[in-house]
Amino acid sequence: MAAGPVHERLAALELVDHHCHGAVTDDLDRAGFESLLTEGEAWPGMSPFDSPVGVAVRRHCAPLLNLPRHTPPDVYLARRADLGAAEVNRRFLRAAGTGVFCVDTGYAPHRVTGPAELTRAADATAYEVVRLEGIAEAVAADGVEPDAYARAFRTAAWEAVRRPGVVGVKSVAAYRTGLDLDPARPSPAEVTAAASRWLARGGRLDEPVLVRHLLWTAVDLGRPLQLHTGFGDGDIRLHRADPALLTDWLRLIAGTIPVLLLHCWPYQRRAAYLSAVFERVYLDVGLALHHVGPARAGAVLAEALEITPFRKLLYSSDAYGAAEFHHLGALAFRQGLADLLQERLDADELSLPDALRLARWAGRDNARRVYRLPGGLLDDG
Amino acid sequence: MAAGPVHERLAALELVDHHCHGAVTDDLDRAGFESLLTEGEAWPGMSPFDSPVGVAVRRHCAPLLNLPRHTPPDVYLARRADLGAAEVNRRFLRAAGTGVFCVDTGYAPHRVTGPAELTRAADATAYEVVRLEGIAEAVAADGVEPDAYARAFRTAAWEAVRRPGVVGVKSVAAYRTGLDLDPARPSPAEVTAAASRWLARGGRLDEPVLVRHLLWTAVDLGRPLQLHTGFGDGDIRLHRADPALLTDWLRLIAGTIPVLLLHCWPYQRRAAYLSAVFERVYLDVGLALHHVGPARAGAVLAEALEITPFRKLLYSSDAYGAAEFHHLGALAFRQGLADLLQERLDADELSLPDALRLARWAGRDNARRVYRLPGGLLDDG
Amino acid sequence: MAAGPVHERLAALELVDHHCHGAVTDDLDRAGFESLLTEGEAWPGMSPFDSPVGVAVRRHCAPLLNLPRHTPPDVYLARRADLGAAEVNRRFLRAAGTGVFCVDTGYAPHRVTGPAELTRAADATAYEVVRLEGIAEAVAADGVEPDAYARAFRTAAWEAVRRPGVVGVKSVAAYRTGLDLDPARPSPAEVTAAASRWLARGGRLDEPVLVRHLLWTAVDLGRPLQLHTGFGDGDIRLHRADPALLTDWLRLIAGTIPVLLLHCWPYQRRAAYLSAVFERVYLDVGLALHHVGPARAGAVLAEALEITPFRKLLYSSDAYGAAEFHHLGALAFRQGLADLLQERLDADELSLPDALRLARWAGRDNARRVYRLPGGLLDDG
Repeated sequence: MAAGPVHERLAALELVDHHCHGAVTDDLDRAGFESLLTEGEAWPGMSPFDSPVGVAVRRHCAPLLNLPRHTPPDVYLARRADLGAAEVNRRFLRAAGTGVFCVDTGYAPHRVTGPAELTRAADATAYEVVRLEGIAEAVAADGVEPDAYARAFRTAAWEAVRRPGVVGVKSVAAYRTGLDLDPARPSPAEVTAAASRWLARGGRLDEPVLVRHLLWTAVDLGRPLQLHTGFGDGDIRLHRADPALLTDWLRLIAGTIPVLLLHCWPYQRRAAYLSAVFERVYLDVGLALHHVGPARAGAVLAEALEITPFRKLLYSSDAYGAAEFHHLGALAFRQGLADLLQERLDADELSLPDALRLARWAGRDNARRVYRLPGGLLDDG
Repeated sequence: MAAGPVHERLAALELVDHHCHGAVTDDLDRAGFESLLTEGEAWPGMSPFDSPVGVAVRRHCAPLLNLPRHTPPDVYLARRADLGAAEVNRRFLRAAGTGVFCVDTGYAPHRVTGPAELTRAADATAYEVVRLEGIAEAVAADGVEPDAYARAFRTAAWEAVRRPGVVGVKSVAAYRTGLDLDPARPSPAEVTAAASRWLARGGRLDEPVLVRHLLWTAVDLGRPLQLHTGFGDGDIRLHRADPALLTDWLRLIAGTIPVLLLHCWPYQRRAAYLSAVFERVYLDVGLALHHVGPARAGAVLAEALEITPFRKLLYSSDAYGAAEFHHLGALAFRQGLADLLQERLDADELSLPDALRLARWAGRDNARRVYRLPGGLLDDG
Repeated sequence: MAAGPVHERLAALELVDHHCHGAVTDDLDRAGFESLLTEGEAWPGMSPFDSPVGVAVRRHCAPLLNLPRHTPPDVYLARRADLGAAEVNRRFLRAAGTGVFCVDTGYAPHRVTGPAELTRAADATAYEVVRLEGIAEAVAADGVEPDAYARAFRTAAWEAVRRPGVVGVKSVAAYRTGLDLDPARPSPAEVTAAASRWLARGGRLDEPVLVRHLLWTAVDLGRPLQLHTGFGDGDIRLHRADPALLTDWLRLIAGTIPVLLLHCWPYQRRAAYLSAVFERVYLDVGLALHHVGPARAGAVLAEALEITPFRKLLYSSDAYGAAEFHHLGALAFRQGLADLLQERLDADELSLPDALRLARWAGRDNARRVYRLPGGLLDDG
């Protein structure tokens, strides 16, 4: 990392990672680790290490395992296995320099650290973000009549957000139906009819009316709502995950809850537009940060920041599974943002106090404000 | 601004700003000025100064008010108030180094300088661009029967474009219906039926058939047609303002009028494609220039210029309200373009005469040609 | 070209150009050459030389005609005419440093070099890629009953791909219907009904059901399938050529044939996403490389490579007509990729062996593997 006051301050800043997942607690073999490296699958004859994120892991994570930079995959994996999952997780989670993790607990195909374990391993604070589709599916699994679905879902959602440590909710509507939804709040009769269809066929919540109902229930809950947009795994249709598709809905809910557009890549400019014209819309470029790696994180952040008000950009890693990503996301964010700000300082396009404030806001204080975390109302300068 | 012959020539070039609005003539208080800084609204607890354009104003505009670079907002606003709107406007409009302003007179929620006042304040020439939706709405306001609407609109439009100083027309179809319109010219019966619906319900012109009719009337008028595309205020749906959606219509009208794609961001590459394959399609990246600021104007221009023929890029500020933007747009254009050209000169990817010609064409001569302004047919080298 | 080991190795690497066309064998006059310079048309009063690709030709091609860099168009064209098409083609095709050309023989409005002539002129190996729409149209031209169409097309396609030297097939579905097709395989009855409509009206294959049928026939053929996406001539609708529109179809055909997304610009990030989540999806940024020129090829490649696995990027020129483009595509690829890799080496984000491997794979070995070309299974390190 280049020198300079912005790099130093960002390196010292305790980040708020406003959207991440847990780290796998079991030891991982090669196939297991490689499957975490990619948003696709690990394919025969192609190592997921042969990718931007694979190169970034070998470059930036190997030293934390006391290995040289650019260590070959085999050596890296052997050393990782020797140390064991607990020690590996501890090292990367602490190296992330993250003071607060907001953990989406609704996605865990592996055994992963919950907020409490993450707190211990990282020596940080962890809060929980509740995935609403999971609540709806639990309501269905528990057995409910179609005409009782709306009330049961609402009750379960309220119970979930009132649990200690829960700071927000999340929806993966982008995966289930795409974001090109009818923006209107569905009527009770429509919800009952849709519940009838869905409960009859079972499976995950992908009934468009119920997904709309879920988003409007989020509005009623009054908590910050995280929305998956853009980049994700092979289950998404990227052209239907464009955050601009939310425009009419965002207009309808203006003045209610904060909406946090997650990931966004490659739609970071469109998300920035939404954050510039809607008071309560925010964005991050999580997930993309470690996948593109420090080599391109600055370029992605530069697009995201072209018109984004400085109060509207947040940091998230969206790390899942490999604790390397909790570290790598933080590192790519710090390095990309610091490079970008330093370049503007050098060109005298920005003053040092402004650069430091922007960095502090994006890395920590904007999340504190939105989620009303400790420090959020005090440290606002 | 870095030194070098391209920077010097661009600094000395009298620009043609082919699409802008007036500057507010009343003195502005803090809330009034801040509301002009953003395409959204000024929100409680978030200053519009905390944004890329806010930083650019404090950096590049403060010195013209005899203040240091990066002046705090309060100091900037106090000094601005002391000088008064007339003096502030005069300073920024002259600093813009713009020889010709083509003023869209159809959008003015504030009292703003018309072409004549802009001419005096800027010591420049000003022409007028007529907004067609405004003409249609005036026809409706004057009272017209549905079956007389088409003729009345056409007559009013012809009268408007024949006024002295009018050089083109503009449509905000992107706001009213989006650009995903049926490309075909509507039949007289369809127009009458649509007029009947619209005149019955009133309000702004957002009836799709009438918006299509408006665009086809523009073709009949034979004048250059400016079309809003991409970035704008919170009233737009960005995914429906993609200029590529115009493809079928552009194919139908090939060989008729010049079409000028305004703003385009974040679709500058798609607009560039249209300009490369349709003879009479042009583009600019106005509005984006001052919102992204000089720090990113070069990056946006570089994308716009990836495949755009050199005869097809124009300069506009799309400044509205704050005369700072008439200056800042010009400055961001000059600096971004000069940096980009200088980099190619340094890499020997471009010769100096070619770089200077490209700059002169984009900054001035392409607009002169399209709008048949004085000098437009002579200075073509 | 800057010095450095990556630049040297890329300069020495015999590329596989996995998608190109022939070079015109007749001498070209000014109008003829200019019409090849642009994806649009050559318009009165605007020289196609006044464009990024025109500048790149004068800069990088003139020296191969023993002219100085940045030679004026008239001088360039005169020298080109003096040398004659055969000599010009020989010079550029050899300068390309391309060891293998995969030639799409289905588009040739001019008399152009076929694979055999290209082999001789370039002192390289040439293979053939068969355009499936051409086969369907030949079947129709030969006369076929609607209910025999499917079988006749399939038989003709099998015959075509079994010809010696044929390594893959191509579809221009993006031009004919757009990529927003129903992903399902059409039933025999649907195909017969669609064939009935199409054969009755004639013309090129633009019947959506038959285009889907063509894509599914490609799956049955088992050969690598090249798909036009993104940038092309004025006949395309760019918003319907977004490769993300193929997502549902790619999911249906997972595990069958390799699919090569051609061109992709300006959707290179979306194509990269597809290549990251689907095992058998690959991409290139051909056509864009020479149109944006070496000045921007690195920027386009950097976006394409943000998340693309290193086994998934291929090189193509998509050169057609002017042999300058076979050279310019190769040069822009080499220079853009080497600059990008060198920058990461300098920042210690990449090791030299990894950089060289990525370059070798993208420039040559990935294509060898996909098309099972000689060397494809051996040189895999």
